[in-house]
Amino acid sequence: MSDAGAGSSGAAVRPRLTAGEIALAVGGRVLGDPAAEVHAVAPLDRAGPEHVSFFASARYQALFEATQAGVVLVAPELAESAGAATAVRILVAKPHEAMLALLPRLYAQPAREPGVHPSAVIGRGATIAEDATVGPNAVVGDGATIGARAWVDASAVIGAGAVVGDDSHVYPHATLYPGTRLGRRVAIHSGARIGSDGFGYVYQAGAHQKIPHVGICIVEDDVEIGANTTIDRGSIDDTVIGAGTKIDNLVHVAHNVRIGRLCLLMAQVGIAGSTRVEDGCILAGQAGVAGHVTIGRGARLAARAGLFGDMPAGETWSGYPARPHKEALRTQAAMWRLAALVRPLERLLARDAAKSKEDAGGTE
Amino acid sequence: MSDAGAGSSGAAVRPRLTAGEIALAVGGRVLGDPAAEVHAVAPLDRAGPEHVSFFASARYQALFEATQAGVVLVAPELAESAGAATAVRILVAKPHEAMLALLPRLYAQPAREPGVHPSAVIGRGATIAEDATVGPNAVVGDGATIGARAWVDASAVIGAGAVVGDDSHVYPHATLYPGTRLGRRVAIHSGARIGSDGFGYVYQAGAHQKIPHVGICIVEDDVEIGANTTIDRGSIDDTVIGAGTKIDNLVHVAHNVRIGRLCLLMAQVGIAGSTRVEDGCILAGQAGVAGHVTIGRGARLAARAGLFGDMPAGETWSGYPARPHKEALRTQAAMWRLAALVRPLERLLARDAAKSKEDAGGTE
Amino acid sequence: MSDAGAGSSGAAVRPRLTAGEIALAVGGRVLGDPAAEVHAVAPLDRAGPEHVSFFASARYQALFEATQAGVVLVAPELAESAGAATAVRILVAKPHEAMLALLPRLYAQPAREPGVHPSAVIGRGATIAEDATVGPNAVVGDGATIGARAWVDASAVIGAGAVVGDDSHVYPHATLYPGTRLGRRVAIHSGARIGSDGFGYVYQAGAHQKIPHVGICIVEDDVEIGANTTIDRGSIDDTVIGAGTKIDNLVHVAHNVRIGRLCLLMAQVGIAGSTRVEDGCILAGQAGVAGHVTIGRGARLAARAGLFGDMPAGETWSGYPARPHKEALRTQAAMWRLAALVRPLERLLARDAAKSKEDAGGTE
Repeated sequence: MSDAGAGSSGAAVRPRLTAGEIALAVGGRVLGDPAAEVHAVAPLDRAGPEHVSFFASARYQALFEATQAGVVLVAPELAESAGAATAVRILVAKPHEAMLALLPRLYAQPAREPGVHPSAVIGRGATIAEDATVGPNAVVGDGATIGARAWVDASAVIGAGAVVGDDSHVYPHATLYPGTRLGRRVAIHSGARIGSDGFGYVYQAGAHQKIPHVGICIVEDDVEIGANTTIDRGSIDDTVIGAGTKIDNLVHVAHNVRIGRLCLLMAQVGIAGSTRVEDGCILAGQAGVAGHVTIGRGARLAARAGLFGDMPAGETWSGYPARPHKEALRTQAAMWRLAALVRPLERLLARDAAKSKEDAGGTE
Repeated sequence: MSDAGAGSSGAAVRPRLTAGEIALAVGGRVLGDPAAEVHAVAPLDRAGPEHVSFFASARYQALFEATQAGVVLVAPELAESAGAATAVRILVAKPHEAMLALLPRLYAQPAREPGVHPSAVIGRGATIAEDATVGPNAVVGDGATIGARAWVDASAVIGAGAVVGDDSHVYPHATLYPGTRLGRRVAIHSGARIGSDGFGYVYQAGAHQKIPHVGICIVEDDVEIGANTTIDRGSIDDTVIGAGTKIDNLVHVAHNVRIGRLCLLMAQVGIAGSTRVEDGCILAGQAGVAGHVTIGRGARLAARAGLFGDMPAGETWSGYPARPHKEALRTQAAMWRLAALVRPLERLLARDAAKSKEDAGGTE
Repeated sequence: MSDAGAGSSGAAVRPRLTAGEIALAVGGRVLGDPAAEVHAVAPLDRAGPEHVSFFASARYQALFEATQAGVVLVAPELAESAGAATAVRILVAKPHEAMLALLPRLYAQPAREPGVHPSAVIGRGATIAEDATVGPNAVVGDGATIGARAWVDASAVIGAGAVVGDDSHVYPHATLYPGTRLGRRVAIHSGARIGSDGFGYVYQAGAHQKIPHVGICIVEDDVEIGANTTIDRGSIDDTVIGAGTKIDNLVHVAHNVRIGRLCLLMAQVGIAGSTRVEDGCILAGQAGVAGHVTIGRGARLAARAGLFGDMPAGETWSGYPARPHKEALRTQAAMWRLAALVRPLERLLARDAAKSKEDAGGTE
């Protein structure tokens, strides 16, 4: 057993801030004791005297009245609200944004200590920047490259010849298959598998013969990929995730898919092989996309939608199979009204048929 | 290379039981040789002379006739059934429950050997109970706490400052992100990620800027979380999994979600951010729940349902979008009858429109 | 820190081939310089002078015209197509298949070096074939068996008593729970969990009591299982994956399920407990199958279908709940036409009801 030293996701140390310091930081005005101290943030209903919270909408009046928070950021239009008797109020235009701005002051980033942990295993010919971190029990394969200030966290596995760009973070238990390339400032969360073999077989001689996958997976700059997501390598082409795109947990991206820049893919989305997702698209949770289709620039696919064909740029589609959202809503509404109509309609049709027959006399 | 000793999930050693001992254990009556010995359980169609099986419903008569089981627990009303010629029968009121009661007698629990394996890496200031187990190649971060009789299994990673409560078991390759808190008797299965960053961004200056996630994930007592499930930490609030709740494999729980006590979440369920699931709810496989909604106490959501709004306590809902189950069934039934009606209805409407026009004469 | 030597997924070394050698290998005819050299494959739009590509359909004429590929395999009927001015053409009957045949010539398989890496941890009584590979930081539990030429890759965990058959490959971070049995030539991709506990509880005394899972998971010969897929062990019975079946990423297979031979299960499919999938079935992406149902031999379930009952052999079903595909398509088509009909139909019914009342006079 040895020290977890390098890259052990060092525990956050929480500084303290006074109400006066907070007001200064967010450009707000203190109502109450400017010396009141807090060391963390919390929502109104879970805050105690050591927390700063925020009150941005009259909708949360009841929570505001009952809160135990030490300091509350309050929207100016709510300044006179009753409640939060023990709290120091700070009036500020956008309390939620002000709160986010405070976070770096109250929460230190986990400390990354440069160096290779003695328990890490480094392959032949691997290149590791001097100020990079390779954590305990991590494995870096032959010929891999770890960039400046990059962090290969505890028990991560970097395949042979893979590249981790500058300032990227590969979290614990993430895997890069051989040859995978990460750009700069990329985050690969725990358990994500990047560059795994695609699902491609040819049925020959009574068996599913595997198609070799010689393409790789390229992840461009500023991409974040969620926990336990899988992104397959290309077969002959490569799989590409465009710069600035963010992918949530448990998403599946199949071989040869190309995702553009600045897209958002939410949890449990699945994209089949060779599909193109152009820049700025949003795919909501559990949506599924067939193979070999194109989703045009800036398009949005609703949660749980199932897309089986191309989708034009800029549109919002939903449903199964997915259709333009307004059309899908109309169909849905009609469906819910249908149950009450089916029997009367069947009776009406029966009567109509009988009448037609009668009108036609015995001529049939 | 070293010995896998501590926490290597020691192979089960199977004791033997005679028919007489089994009858005594389950309160049954032996028909046949009480000295017949078995050492494992199996279903009728896969059992051999070394197995005890059970026969609880006439529906399985054919399997009973063909079984090779050495001993069969038989419901009293089936005592006279033909078949199982070579088996010793034990008559007992509820054969399936009796079978479950036998399991601890026939299958030893994997042995957990207390101690920290020499290949494990322990962070600065971590506290590990003397009778806890830390397995081979596990990593325990700075300032983490491992409780009495807790088991951090092979290659698990416990983040800095995280807490593993007494008698909890973190299976191989599971990850606790820094600060995660597990209660007592919690099981985290292989590859589950607890406390990963939530999916929260603000679009500013041409990029998706990450919202810092300073909340944690709290898992209360007696929770079990399945393999490869992901549970995000809170952003400002915490994510909470209530006591006694059980979560299956590949489930996604987003940031700030609060799940009550004694819920069941089945495989591949997804829950978006800030949703509340009250006590005793059941969410069946592949169901999806939108963000910021509330599922009332004891409610049930059917398999593959997609819930986009609040759901009242005690109700059962299904479909997409989810509706009360009876309503959803009526709509479904109407849908299946619709295909046969559409053309006749279109013809009827056309005739009706023509007739209206005719009735109106040339006045249009 | 030590050398990653054994099993470090050695970087692929790429040999070079001339156009003449390629033509000989695929039985084609060179148009141009037979000495032109390439060392990799790429699709037309991403190929450079160092790549061989293929042109098999007039649909890709524009890409062919613009390609920078050094060598292009061209279907004979496209031999005279304009474009690819700088490329050597090789005429060959089925360019795509010829391309696949070239892959083993251009891409060396990752080298596997036999032996147990010094950082691996081996349990008591484990048996490891002399020519097997156990990679860095892998853990092999007590009494486990690793077959000839098998590869337990970096950081994989093989549970106590588990068996890895000859020529099988357990990729980085995959987990076999204790007792799991893999046949020969099996591939378990990164992060897959085989033999995890099933989701089975009995509600007693105010808590969900866990049903012990004493069955195991048996994976037969030539099975491939994708990244982050989870396959639970049996409760009393075993879970079985039949020979030659291929399973994609993020699939869930519950306890006691039996899947036949030569099936294909695509990404994010979920199968609930005790279901039987017979030989040669195909379950497309995100499909869900209820527990205790049977899918007959050679049946196909469409992407995102939700199956709640048995499905006959040889049929193709789709939709939610799943129905025979033609029926589901008819219903879908009717649904899309419904929105336009609902209002006129409601008016028609209203008029009809009014008329009936009128006809009935005051007699009601």
